[in-house]
Amino acid sequence: MPSISNKGISMPESPIRKLVPFAEEATRKGRTIYQLNIGQPDIKTPQAALDAVRNHTIEVLAYSHSAGFEGYRNKLAAYYEKNNIPVKGDNIIITTGGSEALLFAMGSIADAGDEIIIPEPFYANYNGFATASGVKIVPVESKIETNFALPPIQEFEKLITSKTKAILICNPGNPTGYLYTEEEIKQLAQIALKHDIYLVSDEVYREFAYDGVKHFSIMSLPELENHAIMIDSVSKRYSMCGARIGCLVSKNREVIQTAMKFAQARLSPPTFEQIASEAALDTPQSYFDEVIEEYTSRRNLLVEGLESIEGVRVANPKGAFYCIAELPVENADDFARWLLETFHYNNETVMVAPAAGFYSTPNTGLNQVRIAYVLKKENLQRAVEILKVALAEYNKK
Amino acid sequence: MPSISNKGISMPESPIRKLVPFAEEATRKGRTIYQLNIGQPDIKTPQAALDAVRNHTIEVLAYSHSAGFEGYRNKLAAYYEKNNIPVKGDNIIITTGGSEALLFAMGSIADAGDEIIIPEPFYANYNGFATASGVKIVPVESKIETNFALPPIQEFEKLITSKTKAILICNPGNPTGYLYTEEEIKQLAQIALKHDIYLVSDEVYREFAYDGVKHFSIMSLPELENHAIMIDSVSKRYSMCGARIGCLVSKNREVIQTAMKFAQARLSPPTFEQIASEAALDTPQSYFDEVIEEYTSRRNLLVEGLESIEGVRVANPKGAFYCIAELPVENADDFARWLLETFHYNNETVMVAPAAGFYSTPNTGLNQVRIAYVLKKENLQRAVEILKVALAEYNKK
Repeated sequence: MPSISNKGISMPESPIRKLVPFAEEATRKGRTIYQLNIGQPDIKTPQAALDAVRNHTIEVLAYSHSAGFEGYRNKLAAYYEKNNIPVKGDNIIITTGGSEALLFAMGSIADAGDEIIIPEPFYANYNGFATASGVKIVPVESKIETNFALPPIQEFEKLITSKTKAILICNPGNPTGYLYTEEEIKQLAQIALKHDIYLVSDEVYREFAYDGVKHFSIMSLPELENHAIMIDSVSKRYSMCGARIGCLVSKNREVIQTAMKFAQARLSPPTFEQIASEAALDTPQSYFDEVIEEYTSRRNLLVEGLESIEGVRVANPKGAFYCIAELPVENADDFARWLLETFHYNNETVMVAPAAGFYSTPNTGLNQVRIAYVLKKENLQRAVEILKVALAEYNKK
Repeated sequence: MPSISNKGISMPESPIRKLVPFAEEATRKGRTIYQLNIGQPDIKTPQAALDAVRNHTIEVLAYSHSAGFEGYRNKLAAYYEKNNIPVKGDNIIITTGGSEALLFAMGSIADAGDEIIIPEPFYANYNGFATASGVKIVPVESKIETNFALPPIQEFEKLITSKTKAILICNPGNPTGYLYTEEEIKQLAQIALKHDIYLVSDEVYREFAYDGVKHFSIMSLPELENHAIMIDSVSKRYSMCGARIGCLVSKNREVIQTAMKFAQARLSPPTFEQIASEAALDTPQSYFDEVIEEYTSRRNLLVEGLESIEGVRVANPKGAFYCIAELPVENADDFARWLLETFHYNNETVMVAPAAGFYSTPNTGLNQVRIAYVLKKENLQRAVEILKVALAEYNKK
């Protein structure tokens, strides 16, 4: 047998995937599973986006521009301007999901063995992109005690070496739901400038900011022009996860020119989804108002429900649609598996994502889970009740 | 300014892109350009594929399976069975274009510094994927004198080291149009087995085989089960370049499991294009018969036309829709640029791809160009006439 690459062997598996076989088995047993483990919203995709694809007039489905439709890029730039992100179409490269934007960013700024500092817990697939790119992730732990706020800036500074190429944040955060303050962003900007490294910000959850708190983008800081790289996607904003349309945004021409070489090698992003994404930009504010209202009430219901369970501690999320909860268990991995394999309450159970997979420091967050509030309120309510019963039973063992 | 990665700096630019600014300038001057430089077919996309998207009933554009729709994979497997490629749906991972399939394959079997042997000239973007993956391409020169047939197998064997992980071929070949014989494929299979390395075959032009010659896939050899990785795409087959739907196919479970980790990190391939691609599988044989007939007559017209020009030598292509022509010039790069910058014949000119960019050995193929016969016959005819006039004028300088 020919050999597999070390890179391939060390490619991490998604922390959620591990549970899938057990979920499938539970389903075979006729169990109803409330899925709190995935970031797939149940919100409807804007009609305008779906109709634009339905009404396409394509006869030859040809390659599009490697940076994406020029018309889409310009319209997208206008959308950013409205959000205090002053950019033009040529500061944008349309990518196949935020995933590809992250790969292009890492490839453009870091070589094998270079380091990128990321506050943990962080989106687990950053590990995969780093491994694929040969880049080393250096974590800074953020803590549930502080709601996963930005760790003291000295903690970052301590970790900066000659190999450090960037600090990467997710704002608002998956899995923490934490929304960085303007003050925190400015602190990060300062050390990025001081050490002349990039500040990469994954802002795919931008619209999902609650309690009237406003999202502050790294792109809003003029002094950061050459150091800021923004990652974005239509997946969550318009509930278009299946579109796989994202973008890389930077005012640093060298970064764009370099990322373009990666973009040209793969020819172009998918056409129909660009049509949908461009049309989605016409989505009225009312759509977002309703969505935000829905998520806010879901969050409130979830957090209250979880806090009513003895021994559970919750970090109250200000953005996105996830929260991290600390459970009265030693090993959330084992608990999550037990929920699917053994437990059921009137033939119903819940699926949660063990949080350890979102930390790159070993043996961290072992008693934490990520819960996504992407279910209707009544289901969310029911899921919390089931979780309460499950914890009591699990701890009786 | 923060630094760009060495990887980013060494990412090659497409050999065609260099000419684009000159083409744009020529267009501004009101010149008509016959584009012989690109692999974008003018053939219509099958109606079934376009209609399937038009008739979609999606309400929430959700993530699909990371390996692609199960239904599509099974239907695709059935299509392969018909083509003497006995595979099942779980031997297939749907990717975002053949491009991503190549990246997954390289990442799964090769680490930074590992080597992949490729007969040159080869599809220029292999260089980009290798650079992005940190893999070293080791070329074996195939020659126009032999129509770019497989180089003597000893030439491959000479180059195999402990770092060699695979031999990669494109069959039928872009840019050569060469179609490997069953005998040649079996020779490659033998050394792959002997040295226990992978044989990766890019077969995206499978249907485009002319003169009644049948395409022979590496997947048709049972003894190669653990060593064969096939790259495929709908781009050329159904004139769906903008779909960005391809796949990686292998019966080696370890390869599929490893590639799946790369696939899971980027979540899923685009949904609408999977719908189109699945529907395209119902395209009747008559569609291909017409397309093959069209390309065959285009090829004949092109090859005859080129051979009628003094000093031009053409490798007669048996597949795909490209041919390499040797021109009576010293530097085809300079000639291609001159065609756009200076020359015109009644305000018309042609755009060709200098072939040097398809070789990784420096200063090779300097007097060669790749010509794609993706234009209607009358335009192809006209383009050849213009090329004839241009060569005479260029050589008078």
